[in-house]
Amino acid sequence: MRISVIGGSRVDSEGYESAHELGRLLAERGHTVVCGGYGGVMEAVCRGAREADGETIGILGGETLSEGNEYLTTPIATDMGDARNALVVLNGEACIAVEGAAGTLSELAMAVLYDRPVAGLETHDIGSLGLETARFQAVESPLAAVDHVEAALR
Amino acid sequence: MRISVIGGSRVDSEGYESAHELGRLLAERGHTVVCGGYGGVMEAVCRGAREADGETIGILGGETLSEGNEYLTTPIATDMGDARNALVVLNGEACIAVEGAAGTLSELAMAVLYDRPVAGLETHDIGSLGLETARFQAVESPLAAVDHVEAALR
Amino acid sequence: MRISVIGGSRVDSEGYESAHELGRLLAERGHTVVCGGYGGVMEAVCRGAREADGETIGILGGETLSEGNEYLTTPIATDMGDARNALVVLNGEACIAVEGAAGTLSELAMAVLYDRPVAGLETHDIGSLGLETARFQAVESPLAAVDHVEAALR
Amino acid sequence: MRISVIGGSRVDSEGYESAHELGRLLAERGHTVVCGGYGGVMEAVCRGAREADGETIGILGGETLSEGNEYLTTPIATDMGDARNALVVLNGEACIAVEGAAGTLSELAMAVLYDRPVAGLETHDIGSLGLETARFQAVESPLAAVDHVEAALR
Repeated sequence: MRISVIGGSRVDSEGYESAHELGRLLAERGHTVVCGGYGGVMEAVCRGAREADGETIGILGGETLSEGNEYLTTPIATDMGDARNALVVLNGEACIAVEGAAGTLSELAMAVLYDRPVAGLETHDIGSLGLETARFQAVESPLAAVDHVEAALR
Repeated sequence: MRISVIGGSRVDSEGYESAHELGRLLAERGHTVVCGGYGGVMEAVCRGAREADGETIGILGGETLSEGNEYLTTPIATDMGDARNALVVLNGEACIAVEGAAGTLSELAMAVLYDRPVAGLETHDIGSLGLETARFQAVESPLAAVDHVEAALR
Repeated sequence: MRISVIGGSRVDSEGYESAHELGRLLAERGHTVVCGGYGGVMEAVCRGAREADGETIGILGGETLSEGNEYLTTPIATDMGDARNALVVLNGEACIAVEGAAGTLSELAMAVLYDRPVAGLETHDIGSLGLETARFQAVESPLAAVDHVEAALR
Repeated sequence: MRISVIGGSRVDSEGYESAHELGRLLAERGHTVVCGGYGGVMEAVCRGAREADGETIGILGGETLSEGNEYLTTPIATDMGDARNALVVLNGEACIAVEGAAGTLSELAMAVLYDRPVAGLETHDIGSLGLETARFQAVESPLAAVDHVEAALR
């Protein structure tokens, strides 16, 4: 399946490691990673996926394919800036968030809007906002994140 | 100035009244309303603005100009679906949120991303999420919302 | 009605004068000009429309409202680059082309795709390309252009 | 390299065969096909590429991954309708057109706008329109089309 992994371009080392492990797990289970294609969480998850021979799609805000991180198997240029955040979510069947700031929050909101199941690792607790977030689950580990979205999509 | 007013297409009567009063106030102070162009909060704020002879721009997700509410002076068709939420925020110099669900949350996040000042009326408390939201202010009334964004833009 | 006027940002003085007169005529007949919002033909048609107190909408490729020409009553920022050409056509009920290069050709093609009536002044003869261009008419003057699209929309 | 193949969803049997052979050739030479992802020329080129184990990216106008043709290895949903035509061109380093109508013409124009080398097989003779089309070459066969874009990108 295709799983959108969302998270910021700035990430602490713990978040980087989580995303890295998450990428590896997703690839080992045969999933394709979809992300925003740049650094931080996006780079870490792609790097992990590539180490396990997985596929990685980066939906870039800019207009050149080479501006993405080096672990993308399929960069996609949109030249749409931040409006491309909607496309990152649209192109996965489920969503996993790792940390993140405002960009990640916009994608979490889009995931609710598009009715995608979402697992959140150390990210915004959108459940506290009173949204209908029956499909959102805060999780404690990359493994639990993958298990959650797999179960939700089954 | 141009003020983006964000909020859901479903709204309770209190939210409708707030948005209606907000539209009137914005128009009386010479501001143009930018919104998503459909019903609920979007309709209420446009109706209020029109009653005070204001301008109202609706950035529609669909492809026909006529699908917007009847109080739009300038409907804009994008045919971009929910990705147009980014454009609603981009086209205002500041943002006022009234209630709302996931769509509104995505726009609040975009407002932080684009560094717009934001006033929130009975909406998601994004300040509780740990974002850098120095420009977000929860307010108690439409008047306080307008005062906040005017002060921020001064 | 809303009429999309398309044409390049570089224009010779004859094209500038045609677009200028076209803008004045459109405004005098009560139409709103939609265009790409920058210089050349876009500036000329907006200037003409403003001199006759008309409305002018500029669908800009960039992300700031101030980057459009000075004769826009409603600049719209898209941050979509050239992909916004589709939106220029989508937001008018008919299309008038003045001269122009590749950008204008992309908009002429979009006008056929969206089934808009089109009048062409010294522009690409898309009729020669074998497209189904029953709604395309090459015309000799701004007045004939306005007459053609008005008749087509009647 | 990535090569955008453009052409209509309705195609005659000769065009289908050309596109089919083109896809096979592109894959044999190690190129990835980018296209609009639906039927006609788009399906034919993807089918040819898949028969030679190539990669095929379909930039879809709709919002579901499954709406593309069955020969896509990487469908991308945009929910942008015809505005996605710009993205089809943006995501290739060169462009090959096969027959086509207004949608294809819009993409040819975008290819000139983005300064991509273009080979045209039984398509619109944009050279006749007076555009600066130094990078456009009408060709007689799929092989000549591939040779042209390879030489242009060398």
